[in-house]
Amino acid sequence: MQPVHPIDDATRLEVLGDGRYRGETSPLYGNMVGPFGGVIAAKLLNAILLHPRLLGEPIAFTVNYAGPIADGEFSIEANAARTNRSTQHWSVELRQGEQVAATATGVSAARRETWSSLEARRPEVPLPSELKRFPTLGRAAWTERYDMRFVKGGLDLSAGATPAEDSESVLWVRDDPPRPLDFVSLVALSDVFFPRLFVRRPVWVPIGTISFTTYFHADSAMLAANGDAATLGVARAQQFRNGYFDQSAELWGADGALLATSHQIVYYKE
Amino acid sequence: MQPVHPIDDATRLEVLGDGRYRGETSPLYGNMVGPFGGVIAAKLLNAILLHPRLLGEPIAFTVNYAGPIADGEFSIEANAARTNRSTQHWSVELRQGEQVAATATGVSAARRETWSSLEARRPEVPLPSELKRFPTLGRAAWTERYDMRFVKGGLDLSAGATPAEDSESVLWVRDDPPRPLDFVSLVALSDVFFPRLFVRRPVWVPIGTISFTTYFHADSAMLAANGDAATLGVARAQQFRNGYFDQSAELWGADGALLATSHQIVYYKE
Repeated sequence: MQPVHPIDDATRLEVLGDGRYRGETSPLYGNMVGPFGGVIAAKLLNAILLHPRLLGEPIAFTVNYAGPIADGEFSIEANAARTNRSTQHWSVELRQGEQVAATATGVSAARRETWSSLEARRPEVPLPSELKRFPTLGRAAWTERYDMRFVKGGLDLSAGATPAEDSESVLWVRDDPPRPLDFVSLVALSDVFFPRLFVRRPVWVPIGTISFTTYFHADSAMLAANGDAATLGVARAQQFRNGYFDQSAELWGADGALLATSHQIVYYKE
Repeated sequence: MQPVHPIDDATRLEVLGDGRYRGETSPLYGNMVGPFGGVIAAKLLNAILLHPRLLGEPIAFTVNYAGPIADGEFSIEANAARTNRSTQHWSVELRQGEQVAATATGVSAARRETWSSLEARRPEVPLPSELKRFPTLGRAAWTERYDMRFVKGGLDLSAGATPAEDSESVLWVRDDPPRPLDFVSLVALSDVFFPRLFVRRPVWVPIGTISFTTYFHADSAMLAANGDAATLGVARAQQFRNGYFDQSAELWGADGALLATSHQIVYYKE
C-alpha cells in the first residue's frame, strides 16, 4: 500500500453533507506563524472538488485570508451560488469556532476545445538536475514539503545579506516526496513563493497574504501529463506601498505549458 | 448646480439598511449585451464604500460575474465577514429576482506609511494631447463614457483587419466628461480594456469576463492628486486556451504613480 502523501493528508476533509466539511490544520505544512497559506487554499478548493454537484473543473479561485488560523480544527462550507449550463460559481467559508478565518470564491467550468495561443514567455533556465536544492527553513515546516531549486531570487535573511535589484524569483519546484500534479497541489504551488518583500529587501518583518487569486489554464489531462515532474515558477512584485505589496506569478509545466497564473496582495508591517 | 456625472448616476444605490441596497442598470454604460462589467464592479464596490461600518479604504476587490445581468432593477447585500484591528473582509452579492447574478469579495484597510518601492515600469508614451481619440463603438454605449487614446493595441474588427503580434494595449483613458478619480471610477477603469482576444485576433465571438480582481495601490489622497487627468492603462493576456483567456493590467496616474493592478479571466466561445 502507498503511504498517503503529506498534501493529501493535510487537505483531507471529513464530509458532513450539504457542502459542509470538517478538517484540521496539519503540522506538516506549518509556517512560522500558523499554517502555510497555500495549503489553506488547497483545503478550500478541495471543498469545491469534493462537492457532489461540482460542474467541470476549476478555472478561477480567490481566497481571502480574513484572520489568523490557529492550529487545530476548522469547519468549511461550500455553496454553489449559481450553476449555469457550462459554468458554476462557488462561495466557500472557513470558520474556527464562530469566527470566519477565510473566505473564497471560485468558478468551475466544462471546457471545450477552441483556438488557443500562449503569449507569455517561459524563461530559458537550466534543468533542475543542474541546480542545487534550496535549504529548508527550520522555522517553516512547509518548506520541507517542497523541493525548490532557484535560478534567481532565493531567500537570504542572514545578517549582512544585500538587497536584491528586483523582487523576481525563478525556480523549479515540486512536491517532496514527488506526487502527480492535480488542482489541489497546483493551487498550493501557486503560493509557494517566498514573500517578494524578503526577496527584495532582506529584513524580516511581520507579513501576511490577504487575498490570493489563481487562474487555472490547465485542465486535469494537462496536469496528469506533467506527472510528478517539477514545475517552473516565476514570481515578481509590481509595487510595495504603505503596508501592501502585490505579487504576480506563473507556473509552467516541465514541457513548457503554462499551467496557472496567480496573483496576490500581501500585508507587511514596515 | 453641477450636473451629476454619468458614473455617479450609474452607481447610485438606494440604501435600505443593514448592508442592503437597491439599484438599477444604467443605459449610459450599456455594453453590446447587458451592462458594462466595470460599472457592475463599481456598483458592488460602492455597496462596501457606502456601508456605515466600513474600515479604511479598499485594498483588494474581486468580482465574479455569475450570470447575465438584465437591464433593470437589482438588489445588493454587503456583509463584513470579519473586522480586524486594521483590516476588514467583505462579501457582496448582487441579485436579480431570486438569482445571484454576481458575487464579490473585498478587503479594506487602514494604511500606514512604510518603506515603499515601485518595481513595475511605466512605458514611455506620447502625451494624450499628441494622440487621436479612439472612436466610440456604436453598439456599446459605455465606450462613449471614456476618452481613450491608444498608443498601441486598439480594436479593429472590420473585415480584412489583420491579427496583431500580441494582445498588449497601451492607452490613455479617462472618464468623459472628465471627473476626479476615486475608487468607484478606478475600479470601472480597471475593466475598460477591450477583450484581449479581439485585440489579438480580430474576429468577433461571444465572450464574457467571469472573474475580475483589482488591487488598489493608491489611497484616496493619491487618487485625489490625479484629479481628472487621464490615466495610462496597460493590458496584456498571458494565455488563450480552450475557452478562457487571462488579462493582467496596470493603471498609472498622470504623474507616473502606479494606482492599481488588475487581473481577469474571460470566457470565449471559439
